[in-house]
Amino acid sequence: MALIVQKYGGTSVADADCLRNVARIIADTYKKGDDVVVVVSAQGDTTDDLIAKAKEITGSPQKRELDVLLSAGETMSSALLAMAVQALGCPAVSLQGWQAGFQTSSAYGSARIKTIQTERLKVELGRKNVVIVAGFQGICRYDDITTFGRGGSDTTAVALAAALHADRCQFYKDVEGVYTCDPRKVKGAQRLSEITYDEMLELATLGAQVLNNRAVEMAKKYNVELEVLSSYARNPGTIVKEVTTMEKMLVRGVTKDTDTARISVVGVADIPGVAFKIFSKLAAKDINVDIILQSVGRDNTKDISFTVSRAHAGEAVGILEAMDLTAGLPLVCDTQVAKISVVGAGMETHPGTASKMFEALYGADINIQMISTSEIKISVLIEQAQADRAVAAVHNAFFPEG
Amino acid sequence: MALIVQKYGGTSVADADCLRNVARIIADTYKKGDDVVVVVSAQGDTTDDLIAKAKEITGSPQKRELDVLLSAGETMSSALLAMAVQALGCPAVSLQGWQAGFQTSSAYGSARIKTIQTERLKVELGRKNVVIVAGFQGICRYDDITTFGRGGSDTTAVALAAALHADRCQFYKDVEGVYTCDPRKVKGAQRLSEITYDEMLELATLGAQVLNNRAVEMAKKYNVELEVLSSYARNPGTIVKEVTTMEKMLVRGVTKDTDTARISVVGVADIPGVAFKIFSKLAAKDINVDIILQSVGRDNTKDISFTVSRAHAGEAVGILEAMDLTAGLPLVCDTQVAKISVVGAGMETHPGTASKMFEALYGADINIQMISTSEIKISVLIEQAQADRAVAAVHNAFFPEG
Repeated sequence: MALIVQKYGGTSVADADCLRNVARIIADTYKKGDDVVVVVSAQGDTTDDLIAKAKEITGSPQKRELDVLLSAGETMSSALLAMAVQALGCPAVSLQGWQAGFQTSSAYGSARIKTIQTERLKVELGRKNVVIVAGFQGICRYDDITTFGRGGSDTTAVALAAALHADRCQFYKDVEGVYTCDPRKVKGAQRLSEITYDEMLELATLGAQVLNNRAVEMAKKYNVELEVLSSYARNPGTIVKEVTTMEKMLVRGVTKDTDTARISVVGVADIPGVAFKIFSKLAAKDINVDIILQSVGRDNTKDISFTVSRAHAGEAVGILEAMDLTAGLPLVCDTQVAKISVVGAGMETHPGTASKMFEALYGADINIQMISTSEIKISVLIEQAQADRAVAAVHNAFFPEG
Repeated sequence: MALIVQKYGGTSVADADCLRNVARIIADTYKKGDDVVVVVSAQGDTTDDLIAKAKEITGSPQKRELDVLLSAGETMSSALLAMAVQALGCPAVSLQGWQAGFQTSSAYGSARIKTIQTERLKVELGRKNVVIVAGFQGICRYDDITTFGRGGSDTTAVALAAALHADRCQFYKDVEGVYTCDPRKVKGAQRLSEITYDEMLELATLGAQVLNNRAVEMAKKYNVELEVLSSYARNPGTIVKEVTTMEKMLVRGVTKDTDTARISVVGVADIPGVAFKIFSKLAAKDINVDIILQSVGRDNTKDISFTVSRAHAGEAVGILEAMDLTAGLPLVCDTQVAKISVVGAGMETHPGTASKMFEALYGADINIQMISTSEIKISVLIEQAQADRAVAAVHNAFFPEG
C-alpha cells in the first residue's frame, strides 16, 4: 500500500466528461489499495475568466481580494471532482487550502508555503477517504486567503507529497510525459522514461510548459519522486528524480521559447562597472535577465545585449533610457526573436554537443544572434520566424527520425 | 454614528455595472460616518448554474460537496464587491463565512446558525473597513463549509445585525419596498412605509417574495429593525419592526400564490382519527399542508381536501394511494389553482374584512374553492386562470385607485 499524490490540471477537469474520466483514474488507484490525495486546478479557463471579471470592476484590483476571487476556481473544481469520485462508489472529501492546513506568507498572489498542518489530511486518510485538495491556495497568519500564483497547483501537489511523505507525486496532463521536443509540432519527438530534476528545471525554464519550476525545485529539495503522465492514455509516463539510471542520453530535449526580447545598447563607455550598474538597476525592478552578451571594447566603447521576457521589455528599455550611462545611445528592442535550447545532464562531458547543434542550424541556413551555455544546456537566440525550422533541424540532429 | 448592515441580493450585484451601483450606495453610507457591514448573495444566476454543474456530474450530489461548490458563488461576489468599493476610495475587506465567525449546525444545505464569533468583524470595523461578508455560508464543528439554503443571505444579514447590535438592517432590492400588491402587476399598488414582523411573515409565506421568512423570524426574535428599499431609487423604503406607529391600516396587502396544488379525496370513512392518520403520514414525509377543508359527514363518509406546494403534490397523492384508509377512493389533484390572501394585523378587530374580500370576488364572478383564516390574514383558493383578475378586484376593494 502506497500513498500517492495525484495532480490534475485545468484541462483535465474542464467539463463533466473530463471530471468523470479523472474520477475513474482516482477510483482505480484507490481500489488498488493505495491512499490517494488529489490536487486539482480550476476548470479550463476559469482563472482567466475570473481575472477578466475583476478587471471589469477596476484596472488594478487589490491583491487580497483577487486571491479571494481566484481561490473560488479551485474550490469549485475540488467539490465537483469529489462528487464525481463519490459517484463511482469511492468515498471522497474536498478540502480547501485552509482546511488542508496550508499556512503561507502574506504575499497575496504569490504566497510561499510556510508549513502544512497535516492533522486534518491524516484524519481523512485514516477514514479511507480520497482527499481532494483545492490547489493554488492557503491562508496567511491573518487568516486571509492567499494564492500561490500561476502553476501554484503543481506546488500544492509537491508540498503535500513532501509533507505526507508520499511515495510518488503524479501529474496528469494532456501529454503522455516529457518529450525530447513538442510532440504536437515535431515529428519524431520521443517520450523520455526518466529525467533528472535539473534537466526538468531547464526544460521548464526554456519553454516546455510541463511542470511549474517552483514545484520541481521543491521536489528536488525534498526528494519527491514525480511522474508526468497522460490522463487519457493510461500508460507509464516520465519519472522525474535526482539520478536517472535507465538511460544515458546525452541530450534530453530541444525546446523553443518565444516569450523573449533582445535589447541592445550600442556604444556604451568602456569603463569598469558598466555591466554591474545596468544589471543591478534591472534586478532592483525584479526584471530577470537571461542571456547577456557584451562585445569586446573598441574606441573606448562597447555594445551590450541581453534578453528579458517580453512582458519586461518595455520597462527595461525605459530604465536604460533613464540611466546617465546609456541615455541617448542607439537602442534596439527586438521582440521577433526565439530562444532554442538543447538540454541534457550528459552534455558537460561531451564537448561535441554544441558543435552538433550549430552545425544543424548552419545546415538549415539559420543565423545565430546570441549564444549562452550552462552545464546542462546550450541556448541560442535566433529570428523568431525561423524558430520552428530551427527546432526541427536541431531535434533531427540529436534524435534522427526512424 | 450608527452601525448599518446592508444586504444585496443576486440581482443587485449581477454584473460589473450593478456592482458599481451598489458600491456607490455603500461608499455614501460609509462617508456619512456610519460603520457598514455588507452581506452579499451570489451574482445573478450563479447558484442555479452551479447546481446545474453538479447535476451534470451526478443526479444526487453529496450535500457536503454541494455546499462547498455553492459557497463559491458568494465568495466570488464578496471579493468583486470589495474591489468595487475600494475603487471608490473606500477601505473594504471581504470575509468568508468561516472568517466572519459563522458557526453552524452540520445540516449541509440547510444549516442553522449557532453562534457568530464577532472578533474578526470587530477588528475590521475598528480599522474603519467596510466589511463585506459572503452570505449564505458558515462552518460546522468539523470545520466543514455549510450553507443555509435558499434565502440564506437574508438570514446572514439579520444574524449579523443581531450579533453586532446594529442600528438597522437594510435589504436592497429591485423594488422600492413592500407593497400592498405586486406593483409590476397591479395598478395602484401602494408602498407601505411600515409593517410589523408578523404581517411581513404572512406576506412572505403567501407569495410576496420580498424577504426570506427565516430572516424575518430571526429579526422578530432579536428585535432587529429591518428596511426594504431599492438599490436604484435612493428613496426611503419600508421599515419592518415589532409595532408600527405611523399608520393604522386594516389591510397591508393582497398576495397571490400559484405554487400550490389542491388534493381531494372523496368518500373517506367517517370515523375518528381519519384526519390525524392522513396528516401525520404527510408530516412524516416533511410535506407541509396549508389549507385543510373537511366536509360534514354524510352516509358515513366525508370528503377531505387540502393544499400542498406543487413540488409535493405527486408525493402526497402517492401516500394517499398507499394508505388503507384512502386507497381506491376517487382522488383529485388540481394544480391549476391559486391562493389569494389579504394580510393585515388590524383585521382581527374588524370583522368586515372577510366579507369585503368575498364581495369583491363575487363582483368579479370568481368562485371560491376553499377558505382559510388566521388572526392577520384571510386566504381563498380559486381557479388559477382567474388569479390576476381576483388580485386586482380584491386590491381595488381595499385600496381604491385614485
